[in-house]
Amino acid sequence: METVNRPNEWKIEQGLAGAELPFLDQTGRDTVAIPPQKWVGFWKDEEAIKAFGDPKQLFARELEGWKGYVEWEKYPEKKAIAHKILTSQSFPPHPEYQMSPIPDTNPVLDGYRWKLWHQALGGELDSVPDDSWAMVLKEKHPEMLHLLQFPYNGEPPKRLVTSKPVTPNPLHFVRNHGGIPIIDKDKFSMTLDGLVADPKVYSLDDLMDESKFPRMEKVVTMQCSGTRRIEQICLYPGQGDELPQAPWAEGAIGTAKYVGVSLKKVIKDCGGLINGAKHLELYGAETYFKADQVMNYLVSVPWSKVKANEVMLVWEMNGEPLPKIHGYPLRVVVLGYIGARSVKWLYRIKAIETPSLAPVQSKEYLYFNQQVGKHNQRPTDGIQIQEMPVSSAIMSPWTKQVVIHNGSIRCKGWAYSGGGRWPERVELSADGGFSWYSVPNENLSKKGKWTWRTWEYDLPCDVEGWIEIVCRCWDNSLNTQPLAVRAAWNWGLHVTSSAHRISVYSINKSRDLTKQRFEKFDHLGIPLAPITQPEEFQTQSWEEYEKFWKEHDPRDVDE
Amino acid sequence: METVNRPNEWKIEQGLAGAELPFLDQTGRDTVAIPPQKWVGFWKDEEAIKAFGDPKQLFARELEGWKGYVEWEKYPEKKAIAHKILTSQSFPPHPEYQMSPIPDTNPVLDGYRWKLWHQALGGELDSVPDDSWAMVLKEKHPEMLHLLQFPYNGEPPKRLVTSKPVTPNPLHFVRNHGGIPIIDKDKFSMTLDGLVADPKVYSLDDLMDESKFPRMEKVVTMQCSGTRRIEQICLYPGQGDELPQAPWAEGAIGTAKYVGVSLKKVIKDCGGLINGAKHLELYGAETYFKADQVMNYLVSVPWSKVKANEVMLVWEMNGEPLPKIHGYPLRVVVLGYIGARSVKWLYRIKAIETPSLAPVQSKEYLYFNQQVGKHNQRPTDGIQIQEMPVSSAIMSPWTKQVVIHNGSIRCKGWAYSGGGRWPERVELSADGGFSWYSVPNENLSKKGKWTWRTWEYDLPCDVEGWIEIVCRCWDNSLNTQPLAVRAAWNWGLHVTSSAHRISVYSINKSRDLTKQRFEKFDHLGIPLAPITQPEEFQTQSWEEYEKFWKEHDPRDVDE
Repeated sequence: METVNRPNEWKIEQGLAGAELPFLDQTGRDTVAIPPQKWVGFWKDEEAIKAFGDPKQLFARELEGWKGYVEWEKYPEKKAIAHKILTSQSFPPHPEYQMSPIPDTNPVLDGYRWKLWHQALGGELDSVPDDSWAMVLKEKHPEMLHLLQFPYNGEPPKRLVTSKPVTPNPLHFVRNHGGIPIIDKDKFSMTLDGLVADPKVYSLDDLMDESKFPRMEKVVTMQCSGTRRIEQICLYPGQGDELPQAPWAEGAIGTAKYVGVSLKKVIKDCGGLINGAKHLELYGAETYFKADQVMNYLVSVPWSKVKANEVMLVWEMNGEPLPKIHGYPLRVVVLGYIGARSVKWLYRIKAIETPSLAPVQSKEYLYFNQQVGKHNQRPTDGIQIQEMPVSSAIMSPWTKQVVIHNGSIRCKGWAYSGGGRWPERVELSADGGFSWYSVPNENLSKKGKWTWRTWEYDLPCDVEGWIEIVCRCWDNSLNTQPLAVRAAWNWGLHVTSSAHRISVYSINKSRDLTKQRFEKFDHLGIPLAPITQPEEFQTQSWEEYEKFWKEHDPRDVDE
Repeated sequence: METVNRPNEWKIEQGLAGAELPFLDQTGRDTVAIPPQKWVGFWKDEEAIKAFGDPKQLFARELEGWKGYVEWEKYPEKKAIAHKILTSQSFPPHPEYQMSPIPDTNPVLDGYRWKLWHQALGGELDSVPDDSWAMVLKEKHPEMLHLLQFPYNGEPPKRLVTSKPVTPNPLHFVRNHGGIPIIDKDKFSMTLDGLVADPKVYSLDDLMDESKFPRMEKVVTMQCSGTRRIEQICLYPGQGDELPQAPWAEGAIGTAKYVGVSLKKVIKDCGGLINGAKHLELYGAETYFKADQVMNYLVSVPWSKVKANEVMLVWEMNGEPLPKIHGYPLRVVVLGYIGARSVKWLYRIKAIETPSLAPVQSKEYLYFNQQVGKHNQRPTDGIQIQEMPVSSAIMSPWTKQVVIHNGSIRCKGWAYSGGGRWPERVELSADGGFSWYSVPNENLSKKGKWTWRTWEYDLPCDVEGWIEIVCRCWDNSLNTQPLAVRAAWNWGLHVTSSAHRISVYSINKSRDLTKQRFEKFDHLGIPLAPITQPEEFQTQSWEEYEKFWKEHDPRDVDE
């Protein structure tokens, strides 16, 4: 049978295989279907690439004892060669998972293209993807959900996210932007330069010297601005500032006790800022790729934040040396800012006048107006994402789950607000956000200036069938969350701050009819059928049916 | 690495593989996870089945020239044997597609279990699934979307649903409840009996005799109460009254010119109703299965509807003899009622006192209160679905589609109201249902008491990015549609009457910035990237970026 239908035509028409939809051009008289650009396939100019030289020398290890670290920022020519190599060949597009089924696997996405980039440059970068994955398997909990294998992005499963108010290291989420450099502590040093009176180089021992720098210890909740991104993806696909964007659930948040020093003190040790310096650029030893350019991971924080003693240089996490995957031997922890500013594998801090021009600071982690349109998004139009707004999430039950209960549904979850604000009240609704119950204070974990609060609550629920449980938080500044995902949806798929909303199928055994029905199940030994399949017995006999119609108005009335 | 995570754990946690979620029992002190019942596997009592006798004799063809027709209603003993055979073996559950990915295929669902039922009884039913599918391929348009292969449920693709105000026969949707009986017109007869003064048997020639029965011709829109079911499924899975429920899109509606006679006249020819008859039970020759019981397809219509000349016996569709798949040689067409009442392959009409007790009439096509709960749904709690409420749908553009336009988006679709009401006004919103434009009357097809109206409209739209286009209709009784799917969601997944809502990515080339951007694309010969992938050029140069910050407030303010 000849047909122009595609086998999955029905799904395409319903937006369930949306990646295969043509664009519609309606600017002319007729509507024209434009198939979006397809990847042209692999090509590679082997000779040109060979001519650049031996990768082992071009992209060699920068320092002894620093495996996987290539220094880019000092060597513009090396960067230029890397760019030429990357543009002398093609790479496959990032996999499309937003507009077609998300893989049923763990890792969910493998980061194939990022691995290819590392292989394309070779040298010190060649073994980074494998080394990094080996470190995941060694340092992280076996139950982690690996959203992106490389660069590694992982979060704990829901049942473990809030199991403790302080997150055990193996369960703390990881959002790496590149591979893991494996650094020998004894060979480690960190440079502080730029617009400071007296630039210096510090060993770890220097920083740990309490006679110089007072020790600082803080319990801090760190959150990735991508937390709960899956809710935005499920509403509308977006692009994000880096591809592939991990489809984070509610676990890209974690709380740990960090030990280190205040960056402010170290800057003072260098004689303080000079010549109008207002920002500190932070250098991570991992290699970052963006638009065929290669660089170290660079962001910046304003001096005002450092001055308030809210930027720490950290070597200890929950009583242990920093795990390698979390930045060993030294990382930044910025209190109340998104995780992206808390640079790992810190090797340099540079005092500068304006915020870093590196793409992670200047072109990424930006929050755009919803309606500006993909083709018009200029970096200067986006709000810089530094502090996370107030947010919360339900960790149990799960969306689409059937809950059998006696009139109230046990819920638990977390609440957090960035910038040093804290959750004051958590509220839950069992009717989609119309009426709200307040979680009693004794059901919330301890208040802290820089930390989340975990909570649990038995939410009253009388009705049966599908309900929507909604959770929202009010912080101490009375900020609260918008009720709908759309209200805060943005093209970068960052900062899902809307009230968390799950669908639960409620079976309330405290209601008479349901109670009787379940007693009958028990009595007959009938197991519960899956929710979409019929039960093995009828809810009404023919006698009951016929009796009903004798006693009531008929189905159809005539006059 | 030992782990209790399932590979698709992350999707399970997000309700994207919801079929694998355990139920949570919170009626005790601890929350207990109950895995839903699993299928025990195939088993079959071959000896018992053999002992019932030879299927060729047990379930033989009832009448010469009626291939695939087994009479059940006359023979309670035959029904009882069929029930015993069906319960002497197990059948696999219907495939779960609501809580896990819908297949990427056409047919979407194959009806495996229905085919097995036919094979299990054998005899005349054995070849019915194959014969029926051969008929689909012969009579239906090659572009049909086959939602369920057997019993056949199919609809035209969106581009063909409203391409003509009267639907060509090969494109008219089909919702069969069983296999297709292939009936020789010359061997055909139809009995009218029960509570009539003078029961009679009619050949097709008898009914076509214009000296006895005046010819009746009507253009009628027929709609399946499952139309747009996919929207309900995407919100919450449900069960429906028969499994598997076809995941209908917007095409389970069609319009045709039917020729036949009014059933009222035929009843008069039988001397009229007697002894309190108030309903007409209609018998279709196909075999229907429900809860291991077997029967012919039976429903009923009230006498009041027949008396108004709104029930036709039909042999011609759009100027041709009825297609076999649509009920050849004789079917019922009930004006303004759901398709399920318009019985195909009609072989008997029986006058009765109360609505039919057959399950299709008494236990299916019922509209339940949203919150009654699966375990409590008694047939008497449901509203009988006879007339469809006012509804409408957008056939172009498609949800998740990118539309490039000059300030207005070309839309087209249909609007319909059951029971002899007609669409008076169609309204469209480009802002999610806040402000509404009225489709001018000249853009709607002709008004008819029993028909839909197709429409098209250039919908003004200034904004870019994701928008929600919503369509609603007002009928001549001023009925209109609820705005959200949830407002009319029901456990049976019937009657999706909410305003039709699609997500479209708007690119408005009449806006200056966008216009310039696209001129640049054209100039550079850059093809459009898929929506979730970055374009090949930056929207802002470094010069523009740095200039902006010189002229504006900085990112972070200090005082």
